[in-house]
Amino acid sequence: DRKLKVFSLSSNPELAKEVAEHIGVPLGKSSVTSFSDGEIQINIEESIRGCDVYIIQSTSAPVNQHLMELLIMVDALKRASAATINVVIPYYGYARQDRKARAREPITAKLVADIIQEAGADRVITLDLHAPQIQGFFNIPVDQLVGVPILGDYWSEKNLEDVVIVSPDHGGVSRARQLAERLKAPIAIIDKRRPRPNVSEVMNIVGKVDGKTAILIDDMIDTAGTISLAANALIENGAKEVYACCTHPVLSGPAIERINDSAIKELVVTNSIVLPKEKQIDKVVTLSVAPLISEAIIRVHEELSVSVLFD
Amino acid sequence: DRKLKVFSLSSNPELAKEVAEHIGVPLGKSSVTSFSDGEIQINIEESIRGCDVYIIQSTSAPVNQHLMELLIMVDALKRASAATINVVIPYYGYARQDRKARAREPITAKLVADIIQEAGADRVITLDLHAPQIQGFFNIPVDQLVGVPILGDYWSEKNLEDVVIVSPDHGGVSRARQLAERLKAPIAIIDKRRPRPNVSEVMNIVGKVDGKTAILIDDMIDTAGTISLAANALIENGAKEVYACCTHPVLSGPAIERINDSAIKELVVTNSIVLPKEKQIDKVVTLSVAPLISEAIIRVHEELSVSVLFD
Ligand SMILES: Nc1ncnc2c1ncn2[C@@H]1O[C@H](COP(=O)(O)O)[C@@H](O)[C@H]1O
Ligand SMILES: Nc1ncnc2c1ncn2[C@@H]1O[C@H](COP(=O)(O)O)[C@@H](O)[C@H]1O
Repeated sequence: DRKLKVFSLSSNPELAKEVAEHIGVPLGKSSVTSFSDGEIQINIEESIRGCDVYIIQSTSAPVNQHLMELLIMVDALKRASAATINVVIPYYGYARQDRKARAREPITAKLVADIIQEAGADRVITLDLHAPQIQGFFNIPVDQLVGVPILGDYWSEKNLEDVVIVSPDHGGVSRARQLAERLKAPIAIIDKRRPRPNVSEVMNIVGKVDGKTAILIDDMIDTAGTISLAANALIENGAKEVYACCTHPVLSGPAIERINDSAIKELVVTNSIVLPKEKQIDKVVTLSVAPLISEAIIRVHEELSVSVLFD
Repeated sequence: DRKLKVFSLSSNPELAKEVAEHIGVPLGKSSVTSFSDGEIQINIEESIRGCDVYIIQSTSAPVNQHLMELLIMVDALKRASAATINVVIPYYGYARQDRKARAREPITAKLVADIIQEAGADRVITLDLHAPQIQGFFNIPVDQLVGVPILGDYWSEKNLEDVVIVSPDHGGVSRARQLAERLKAPIAIIDKRRPRPNVSEVMNIVGKVDGKTAILIDDMIDTAGTISLAANALIENGAKEVYACCTHPVLSGPAIERINDSAIKELVVTNSIVLPKEKQIDKVVTLSVAPLISEAIIRVHEELSVSVLFD
């Protein structure tokens, strides 16, 4: 059997530690520092020759820094003769730049896929891609994990009564449906419409929310504009209480202020993105994806070993 | 003839403007901004279909930001049907990470070359690479420009008397020789040696400096440790005055303080890297590489047009 090693970079050190513990291996010894001029310096402090290496790194903010760390680490592992280089990207940054919406736009999500492969990655494990099409941007295997079960377990244990699962827009309906099935709850959809040009949007709600406990779900919450407006619209339409959840708490710009000021009672997120202290407000509950990622790594590692056995 | 367009990104906007003026074309309309979460957003605001496009961007600090801007711009130009995408990188960052000096080190200078090509660049124009071998990291044409003539012209006009050109280490002797030939001056070399382990280095000087005006030359000055020690050693060895010059003023960390405190009377640099206000001290003189880059672009563009004529 080939040896499995887990390495952390700087985006999610705690998650990487948890994953290594879960799997039952010591976290790989390495360091990420900067030279005086800001260039990244990576040191891998143990042999990885012939090993299956898993690097845990979200391309969360500072996205360009985190991405370059990942690329440089992959380059170093490749040159140090790792057997396979598997990159675990809990949060895949630049995912919203996945198509040319206007003329002369880049497709940065594809560029990122290209350069991760070019650096030498053999496999990607990721979680709730903003668009599942991004899997097709890679020519190497991509395993996409799903956050809904983790969020679902949390809400099940909380035992809320008369729940309705709400998608804040049309794009998220199937995710809402998945959560609703787990909780045996109905769904509703916020149907934003602009009745005429230059008239503000109307938050029309499709589905019954009156008197119910609403749980909003999205894949990511960035500036929290959509989710906080949705929460307020739910209350205006008679919802008793509003909760919210998402896999990726980007929470940039005015997000924390908006969530604090909104009708959202509790926001449940995962640790795919580490929240700095100032964003760890009382309303935010963080669930760990370490068990999910660990199981994926174990599964992949077993498959790899199997394929090696038959090679 | 195909149209030539020059675009700036955020590292060297003034240089790009100068280059466009020199060539006699308007600077291409584009903008580099950030989304709320820090992801880069690039807008190209004019058609570039069928054009030969030149992007001017140094991968100076913040290096990862500047590099990603460049990659995203190349991606956008490629998807917008540019005829050729030529990247002008006056300062090539990560150049010192050009070999495995220790086990398990990355070769980031090669990684950077790989991802610039992967993004879709057709040609690179650069200036005084830290190691000329980096040209071979690319499989596309690389034109390497040389800063010595610009620095040489400056010193010629200054008309210093009884000059000696000094290389601060063994690696820079041929550069010192080139400058010395232009100025019809002799050379000297600082020959650092550690006589025994755990004994501090001795600055031995090879060549005559006593009573002379010394001009130190290097390709880049980063923390300015080497150059300021060299300057002081020259004075101790009887040099009358010490000047210094380099192509790339990285000037990170303690650099400015060290230069201010050193025997260096004047430091002459180019605008391959933009110095923020606090680094524009009296001792530092900046020369523009805009004419050099402009002529290179014109030359390359003519070659390209010629090859098209004969295709
Ligand atoms: N980091 C970002 N923050 C906000 N908007 C973005 C970001 N990246 C891309 N976009 C825009 O978001 C849109 C796609 O979002 P979506 O419709 O949710 O897939 C595109 O039109 C992009 O221009
Ligand atoms: N940004 C940087 N700042 C300082 N040292 C660096 C940097 N990048 C690489 N190095 C180190 O510099 C050495 C190469 O420098 P040189 O001998 O001048 O080519 C290598 O051993 C690198 O580890």
